Amino acid sequence: MRGGLDLGGTKIQAVVVDEDFRVLGKSRRPTPGEGGPPAVADALAAALADAAADAGVDPGALEGVGLGSPGAVDAPAGTVAEARNIPGWGEGAYPLAAALGERLGARVALGNDVQVGVDAEYALGAAKDSPSLLGVFWGTGVGGGIILDGKPWLGRGAAGEIGHMVVERGGARCPCGRRGCMEAYAGRGAMEAEARRQAGAGRETSLFQIMEQRGRVRLQSGIWARALKRGDGLATELIGRAVEALGTGIASAVNLLDVETVVIGGGLGTRLGEPYVERIRDAMRPHLFLDERPPAVRPAALGDLGGAVGAALLVA
Amino acid sequence: MRGGLDLGGTKIQAVVVDEDFRVLGKSRRPTPGEGGPPAVADALAAALADAAADAGVDPGALEGVGLGSPGAVDAPAGTVAEARNIPGWGEGAYPLAAALGERLGARVALGNDVQVGVDAEYALGAAKDSPSLLGVFWGTGVGGGIILDGKPWLGRGAAGEIGHMVVERGGARCPCGRRGCMEAYAGRGAMEAEARRQAGAGRETSLFQIMEQRGRVRLQSGIWARALKRGDGLATELIGRAVEALGTGIASAVNLLDVETVVIGGGLGTRLGEPYVERIRDAMRPHLFLDERPPAVRPAALGDLGGAVGAALLVA
Repeated sequence: MRGGLDLGGTKIQAVVVDEDFRVLGKSRRPTPGEGGPPAVADALAAALADAAADAGVDPGALEGVGLGSPGAVDAPAGTVAEARNIPGWGEGAYPLAAALGERLGARVALGNDVQVGVDAEYALGAAKDSPSLLGVFWGTGVGGGIILDGKPWLGRGAAGEIGHMVVERGGARCPCGRRGCMEAYAGRGAMEAEARRQAGAGRETSLFQIMEQRGRVRLQSGIWARALKRGDGLATELIGRAVEALGTGIASAVNLLDVETVVIGGGLGTRLGEPYVERIRDAMRPHLFLDERPPAVRPAALGDLGGAVGAALLVA
Repeated sequence: MRGGLDLGGTKIQAVVVDEDFRVLGKSRRPTPGEGGPPAVADALAAALADAAADAGVDPGALEGVGLGSPGAVDAPAGTVAEARNIPGWGEGAYPLAAALGERLGARVALGNDVQVGVDAEYALGAAKDSPSLLGVFWGTGVGGGIILDGKPWLGRGAAGEIGHMVVERGGARCPCGRRGCMEAYAGRGAMEAEARRQAGAGRETSLFQIMEQRGRVRLQSGIWARALKRGDGLATELIGRAVEALGTGIASAVNLLDVETVVIGGGLGTRLGEPYVERIRDAMRPHLFLDERPPAVRPAALGDLGGAVGAALLVA
């Protein structure tokens, strides 16, 4: 058995899987809002311990634990720097693999969160039959991962930043500080900022009411889904804007790479599912150079657990 | 010795090279404006015969001839379809390799024009020391070619369409019919159309005067270069707009692929050279996700002959 951990901006997902990557145990908890990297290591260890208990196994008895992390991941060194979506992380490199290994009494292998999610969809999920794949993770940010000829393409270590492809020069301000990036329209972080701005300016919306009813402080994916279902005007508009940006940016990436398959995952992608993947397909079409043979565009098949199961793939 | 032919929208370049790809003979002629594919095959054969004469060899004595063609190239079948930049080509697949081979009495190998140009820069030119490369061919259109881990990445056969990455949603109309593509701002075809539109509306410019003085009917790269040297306002403005679009689109591609090297070639890229490559570098910077370590951005080293020399690489 192996453990897998997916560290996200708002939540930690843990799984314990067997040798066929079937999920035997799982658990989830929020990403700590304070305490920085050591608090995150504590929460990761606790989540994995819960998943192990759920599977009826001791964490120390696992073959190993894989962890998918945001930020600049140095897998051989076991460090993570610049994990901007994690509160209090800062710029410096933190030895997350060692810190977690010590807490768990197990070997920890580190990988980039988006890339392990893409690897999982390639090995086990929506792109199992496809030799080339662009994974788009639509969540707090918009991440991407690339598999070409069956192998991850990492470039000089930072390939896949599809969220920072420009869809509109001089356009909306992105959380990265630049303008007109796809993420400036489609990232849940940017969408929440825009929703707060418009609500603050008097725009009617049920988004923050739903958030409060559910005891949340951020507009998580389920809140957007619920507001859409209620026909909330602002949510509908901002999600529509996100879909258009995704369609434009993904089509641009396809024009460049001509991949067989695009998989849409991430918190929002998974939550909104096929009906919105269909809308992204439609939004891509006007921008595809070869619109008579678009790539297959599919929702991620492994859902919320994909990142954690993919992390378990890191265990050699 | 081998022959190499580069078929462009306005001109045909032919070379004869030795086994080290040193150029022994060369010739150039305009792409026929009428007569369709058979006239193009005639002109290609005549250009290669001239280059062979320049090298003092009979075309039939060459090991083989490589041809880089625009359009949808089916290399194994030896056919070219949809070569939209070649007057009178139409949609159907034309057996260009066989037609040319018959005229020359030599074996002809076919490849995509942009990809052979990129292969040449990788094998012999500006990216000789680089494992990953994005080639950007700034000419009548804006083409691209990708080399990853030392191998061309062709996708499902149509990778590299960097000119049709969107830089501005709902922006300028592109010759491809879509809106906001990089080529809509940076392709020489689109730039000429915009220059004609503005000149027709009364805007002062020396572009068409220079064109007429030089006995041309289209705004070839040398005409743009001369107008820029004269400080022509419209030329300066449209080239500036092109540079901005190139910077945006290339930076987006680098954010996605994180390549080591970008090579800027093509008619305009080669003609305008390093000072404009420097401006493209500057225009990329605001959009690069990792702006502290940009890729190397270099002018194509093989200049005007790169496509033809690259085509000679096709001869096995």
